[in-house]
Amino acid sequence: MTQLASMGGDTAADNEGGSNGPTVAPTPYDLGTPEGVLGAEELRLVDAWWRAANYLAVGQIYLMANPLLREPLQAEHVKPRLLGHFGTVPGLNLAYVHANRAIKARDLNAVFVAGPGHGGPGPNACAWLEGTYSELYSHIGRDERGMRAFFHQFSFPGGVPSHCAPETPGSFHEGGELGYSLLHAYGAALDSPELTVFCVVGDGEAETGPLAGSWHAAKFIDPARDGAVLPILALNEYKIANPTLLARIPEAELLELMRGYGYDPHVVAGDDPGTVHQLYAETLETCLDAIAEIQRRARSTDEVPGPDDAGPRWPMIIMRTPKGWTCPPQVDGQQVEGTFRAHQVPLPAARTDGTHRAVLEQWLRSYRPEELFDDEGRPVQELLDLPPTGTRRMSDNPVANGGALLRDLRLPDWRDYGVDVPNPGTTAHEATKVLGTWLRDVTRDNPTSFLTMAPDELASNRLQDILEVTGRRWQAQEGEFDERLDRQGRVIEVLSEHLCEGLLEGYLLSGRHGAFTCYEAFIHIVDSMFNQHAKWLQASAQVPWRRPIASLNYLLSSHVWRQDHNGFTHQDPGFLDVVLNKDPSIVRIYLPPDANTLLSTFDHCLRSRHYVNVVVAGKQPQFDYLSVEDAGLHCARGAGIWDWASSHDDAGTLPDVVLGAAGEIPTLEVLAAAAILRERLPDLRVRVVNVVDLMRLLPEDEHPHGLSDRDFDTLFTATQPVIFAFHGYPWLVHRLTYRRANHSGIHVRGYKERGTTTTPFDMVMLNDLDRFHLVMDVIDRVPSLGASAAGLRQEMADARLRARTYTRENGVDDPAVAGWTWPF
Amino acid sequence: MTQLASMGGDTAADNEGGSNGPTVAPTPYDLGTPEGVLGAEELRLVDAWWRAANYLAVGQIYLMANPLLREPLQAEHVKPRLLGHFGTVPGLNLAYVHANRAIKARDLNAVFVAGPGHGGPGPNACAWLEGTYSELYSHIGRDERGMRAFFHQFSFPGGVPSHCAPETPGSFHEGGELGYSLLHAYGAALDSPELTVFCVVGDGEAETGPLAGSWHAAKFIDPARDGAVLPILALNEYKIANPTLLARIPEAELLELMRGYGYDPHVVAGDDPGTVHQLYAETLETCLDAIAEIQRRARSTDEVPGPDDAGPRWPMIIMRTPKGWTCPPQVDGQQVEGTFRAHQVPLPAARTDGTHRAVLEQWLRSYRPEELFDDEGRPVQELLDLPPTGTRRMSDNPVANGGALLRDLRLPDWRDYGVDVPNPGTTAHEATKVLGTWLRDVTRDNPTSFLTMAPDELASNRLQDILEVTGRRWQAQEGEFDERLDRQGRVIEVLSEHLCEGLLEGYLLSGRHGAFTCYEAFIHIVDSMFNQHAKWLQASAQVPWRRPIASLNYLLSSHVWRQDHNGFTHQDPGFLDVVLNKDPSIVRIYLPPDANTLLSTFDHCLRSRHYVNVVVAGKQPQFDYLSVEDAGLHCARGAGIWDWASSHDDAGTLPDVVLGAAGEIPTLEVLAAAAILRERLPDLRVRVVNVVDLMRLLPEDEHPHGLSDRDFDTLFTATQPVIFAFHGYPWLVHRLTYRRANHSGIHVRGYKERGTTTTPFDMVMLNDLDRFHLVMDVIDRVPSLGASAAGLRQEMADARLRARTYTRENGVDDPAVAGWTWPF
Repeated sequence: MTQLASMGGDTAADNEGGSNGPTVAPTPYDLGTPEGVLGAEELRLVDAWWRAANYLAVGQIYLMANPLLREPLQAEHVKPRLLGHFGTVPGLNLAYVHANRAIKARDLNAVFVAGPGHGGPGPNACAWLEGTYSELYSHIGRDERGMRAFFHQFSFPGGVPSHCAPETPGSFHEGGELGYSLLHAYGAALDSPELTVFCVVGDGEAETGPLAGSWHAAKFIDPARDGAVLPILALNEYKIANPTLLARIPEAELLELMRGYGYDPHVVAGDDPGTVHQLYAETLETCLDAIAEIQRRARSTDEVPGPDDAGPRWPMIIMRTPKGWTCPPQVDGQQVEGTFRAHQVPLPAARTDGTHRAVLEQWLRSYRPEELFDDEGRPVQELLDLPPTGTRRMSDNPVANGGALLRDLRLPDWRDYGVDVPNPGTTAHEATKVLGTWLRDVTRDNPTSFLTMAPDELASNRLQDILEVTGRRWQAQEGEFDERLDRQGRVIEVLSEHLCEGLLEGYLLSGRHGAFTCYEAFIHIVDSMFNQHAKWLQASAQVPWRRPIASLNYLLSSHVWRQDHNGFTHQDPGFLDVVLNKDPSIVRIYLPPDANTLLSTFDHCLRSRHYVNVVVAGKQPQFDYLSVEDAGLHCARGAGIWDWASSHDDAGTLPDVVLGAAGEIPTLEVLAAAAILRERLPDLRVRVVNVVDLMRLLPEDEHPHGLSDRDFDTLFTATQPVIFAFHGYPWLVHRLTYRRANHSGIHVRGYKERGTTTTPFDMVMLNDLDRFHLVMDVIDRVPSLGASAAGLRQEMADARLRARTYTRENGVDDPAVAGWTWPF
Repeated sequence: MTQLASMGGDTAADNEGGSNGPTVAPTPYDLGTPEGVLGAEELRLVDAWWRAANYLAVGQIYLMANPLLREPLQAEHVKPRLLGHFGTVPGLNLAYVHANRAIKARDLNAVFVAGPGHGGPGPNACAWLEGTYSELYSHIGRDERGMRAFFHQFSFPGGVPSHCAPETPGSFHEGGELGYSLLHAYGAALDSPELTVFCVVGDGEAETGPLAGSWHAAKFIDPARDGAVLPILALNEYKIANPTLLARIPEAELLELMRGYGYDPHVVAGDDPGTVHQLYAETLETCLDAIAEIQRRARSTDEVPGPDDAGPRWPMIIMRTPKGWTCPPQVDGQQVEGTFRAHQVPLPAARTDGTHRAVLEQWLRSYRPEELFDDEGRPVQELLDLPPTGTRRMSDNPVANGGALLRDLRLPDWRDYGVDVPNPGTTAHEATKVLGTWLRDVTRDNPTSFLTMAPDELASNRLQDILEVTGRRWQAQEGEFDERLDRQGRVIEVLSEHLCEGLLEGYLLSGRHGAFTCYEAFIHIVDSMFNQHAKWLQASAQVPWRRPIASLNYLLSSHVWRQDHNGFTHQDPGFLDVVLNKDPSIVRIYLPPDANTLLSTFDHCLRSRHYVNVVVAGKQPQFDYLSVEDAGLHCARGAGIWDWASSHDDAGTLPDVVLGAAGEIPTLEVLAAAAILRERLPDLRVRVVNVVDLMRLLPEDEHPHGLSDRDFDTLFTATQPVIFAFHGYPWLVHRLTYRRANHSGIHVRGYKERGTTTTPFDMVMLNDLDRFHLVMDVIDRVPSLGASAAGLRQEMADARLRARTYTRENGVDDPAVAGWTWPF
């Protein structure tokens, strides 16, 4: 008989036990009377708040009862499973309480970003102390009973997550995956001239690539019209098990690094609370004065920066304090405070080990809770009076609940930007270029609430018309031949998909709108950021006080079928698969086949809320198929029969075969295949179905956009062979249609990881998506055609060979094939 | 009648035309007699090589005939589709020819990494000049005919890609997605004490997060036992359409940034070739002297760095030269040389526009080809004599064809590390901890050819036993409480998945072995790096002279089912879906359910070549099921019936239901469900099938590991209901089994994006993967059970409710459920 000892996760109890050496409790510290900007009384109050927040953090991690230690601590007061991260909490709380002091002194409109968001107990504690927690969660009163519930729920099943999360008042930054704190902070600061973002960056997080790159984001902050970010590098020296790189280089080198990134760094270092409070308070005043001066100068009308002006040198703080500061210095004979062992739960056996439990009690009492909370468990009056009030509380600032600030966009009627389509295939346009004319006016009409992000690909993706009304945001120097740089530009271009994504996320999370245009293959660079944002949207939709935010809109162009020139590395449509793994309530995928459908789609996306919309569209000249009216109707339906391309009038009989298409190039090839079939096999009843909204393929109970089985079968039939030409990897369509009656009759062509530097038509041939192969597929799957079609099948095979030979010999596609004449 | 004018890609011809202003040809420059380290004759030769390489680059982009301009340039000599990137080429060629001079002078063993690898014409040209191209490609002789073929094939269908690629001699770094050049360079330098890597970093690439973070990789380079990387920041000021950030900050700030990253930067700036040659040559000597001195000191036995030693300050070069240097200064009235307009093809209409073509001819002639190539089109003798010879040529260095250097690992017999399993479920182990004992000895026995990478998660993922024989590599300062840091450590820990992945890729590409252990959810951070590496492997397998390299081995732990404590952000098994989109010849996925199967799997992975192996394994205590012998057999089969868990002896009759499982936790839940069914429905014939090698589910014609239909049906039947419990998103199993006879009978349970901070058993319940729900699924899908099973079904529903209630009340799982007693 064997039992697994623990189904526990990576809990503190899993830590390898140390020696049997002493476990030492911290002693209440003496604040002393250090000189500085804080008067003695103010120092005492700031420190009291800090102690209260630290106490409440320890309580969240350990206690499920006896929150105020009214009785001696017993095993049953301690949670059976100890989860949470204390190491970073004291630093977060320090930054928070000093930010509060500055908010009151300067009447700042400020929010707080906890980069080390695994230290969730810290921001939770601050929100509880400020009263916001109780206002938002009626069962978490600011009294003993509420405190008990507050402690109990933390990292407890049915409670709140251990990291900062949508449930955390005042947070718009998820404390899970690391790397994006500065980007979210700068994103929130854009177009918020009155906002100050205090952004704590962990020194672990600082090792990630995205964070290392995002220090440069300050170069997109316009001091005249944007808010300010004050980065606070929390240098507590350790990650989970290792020292951090930035803590192990000489301080002079770290200062050079920060200056090299363009900042003016200020060091606050120490482990004596009183001294650190004074130093931090003074440093914060210096930094906020510097920010105010930068903004004042920029906002005074008579100073215009010249091209050699490198932009302001913003201040930042390096906060070097011990990891797990104020926790037990030694546990089981091993140093804990100031080391990586303080990362999670310093006393892992507090429930089962009497010594640990006794030290836990001493630790909690070292914060002197009796001075901090009254008999009812409420914070004492002087603590209640300390923080700012109302929405000046960072835990209640609506910027952190961006949906509360969201206003709809002024959207010009997309129909006015549509192209004339007298008949399908009589005109051709670059779809994204047409969209660019509309986005230009969206940009013009929403001068402080709509931004476009691009990794140096705005013009390459043909959205350059936006630059008619604005420039590319840029606060660094300008060169003689630079084009369309603009200190207040509404386009942000930086060669980092991480920066584009992170800045846009921050902008959306704080209540504004935007779009991100990217080469399709390289959007994979932010797969994980997309994942985390989708999770945030899904989880925040379950939090009653959170308001829906604007959707995250991707415009993916330079897609797999038109990266023939850049080659195999640029050919990857797999982002769609990543997106479809997220919750159906959040994700949408659109594949408009021409200019007018792209306009209609993007208009819909910019009106939507709380989604991630992925739009894949072409940027090369392509035939127009649908008029503005038809495009609007087709997009509203999401999928429909294109009678004009079919050879079957649907008058009471089933088609012999359905040709389905989703995506620009698949649509082109399907239409060409249908034309061949109409001409060469005039008796074959061919139906052409085009899908714009990919989610229509899903069953109605699996996605809000899903077609009912009846509607699906009306389009694709329940019985007839379907040849479906798809933009991405073919199995995605199988997955979407898996539960349909006809699923075994659906034959999908798509990208099957065959690519190189070649021509567009060669690309579709390499992957058997070309018109000739589609005709062959039809012949193979309509048995009734029999021998009569064998000749045509051979012709198609020959045409493929000819097309390939022509390409190999001439370096371009045979114009008779690829630059095809419209067959209507 | 409408025709699409162009199916061309993002070709130069797509560039928006400028005004009708003048198009100006460059004039042959006068080298002058600048003073410096190069004597006049050496200067002339270095410059001649540079001109030759630039000429050959322009030829590749434009010409399909008349390569030596023996006749006036005609339209038909110019390619119909002009593809390629010239802007970065002159800088690449400059760095290359000067590297060559140093290689000869110092007998360096050196390789070249072209971060701006879109400048493929440059490295191609250098390889052709060195003769390597002709040695590797018999049709590309080093003569006029060969030159013509060399030009013709570039970016031509059936030819070679426009970027550096596996086809490029001397390249082990793909020139597609940007961000990883320094990581590949440093990865190659690890454990190669005699190697020097010249790594050109584009200033565009330098904006990416991964590149910004990877400057710190020098802190893992041991000057005593590793080689050296010389980063060369190519500061040509422009990306596709924008200036670069690093070119638009004051130079003093840039120098601070580089010093802050730990380097000693040296600036080479200018646009006069002679002056720049002298400056570059002198700077390179300074840098290589500095590297030699760093290495000499480190390798002299009497100097051991102390804990405050921050490691060496390696030199680096900032090369500030014009983009498109030596190209036409103006085209159609717009400045091109020295601007973003030189990024791709400076003369976009050279085939069709007489002026452009005439200027192209003048441009080519400005390099004075008649001085560079003889009558046969061979480089003149002094150019043939200039570069190093044999494998000292960077284009022929075997390090860049790492498979040529690859030696197999000394692998201790994994069976010796296996755990005793007298009967299934009588013992329990942490699977990755057991693996760690074997990896410890793999590390010990391969002291210069095996590395383990982890983003601060080595111990968290339970591989800490490796640290018994080595430490964590670290060249920065050490603190009092740091643990197991080691200047020569065989483990690299840095909180950046990008750095872990990139360094390992560089290490593998240069012929060594390794593993990357990561939290499952956060491996998505390197989705795109994985994509690109898989594409490299696929493409390089088609290049005859490329040798297979060691596989890229991922060990993903802290997986979706055991991140209950960290919450929703840490729960994501979707990397498997990303992996499955790549070519079947490259990717493998393994889900070993216990310690011995993990050992056997990883042994197999470390012996394999040229794959990406993804292994997902548990780190928490889990039952052992298979003895060493059975584990070896099961893993060799990849999937098999577990008779001992089934209630059906397979003696001639079909089972009533098949319970399939892939993954640690699904296996546990399936075994528990089978136990319930055996006890409660003893007449039900239940077969349990476990899948270790996920690719076995694919048809044999879709993957080398795929089971034949007959073998698949032998396991899963062609007719009986299958309940399949899967580690990841459920549709992946549908995708894999889509073509099987029984596919509509396969019902999959897996992760469906339901998560939070809770308990392990609650996680499986949230996603309906728990044993109780699996029993309910069986009852629902075996109609013959009828009403007799209704009571059991209700019991199961009640058990779920009880389990959840217990969890909500107690904060832990009901031990009677989750810490279950083995039912045999």
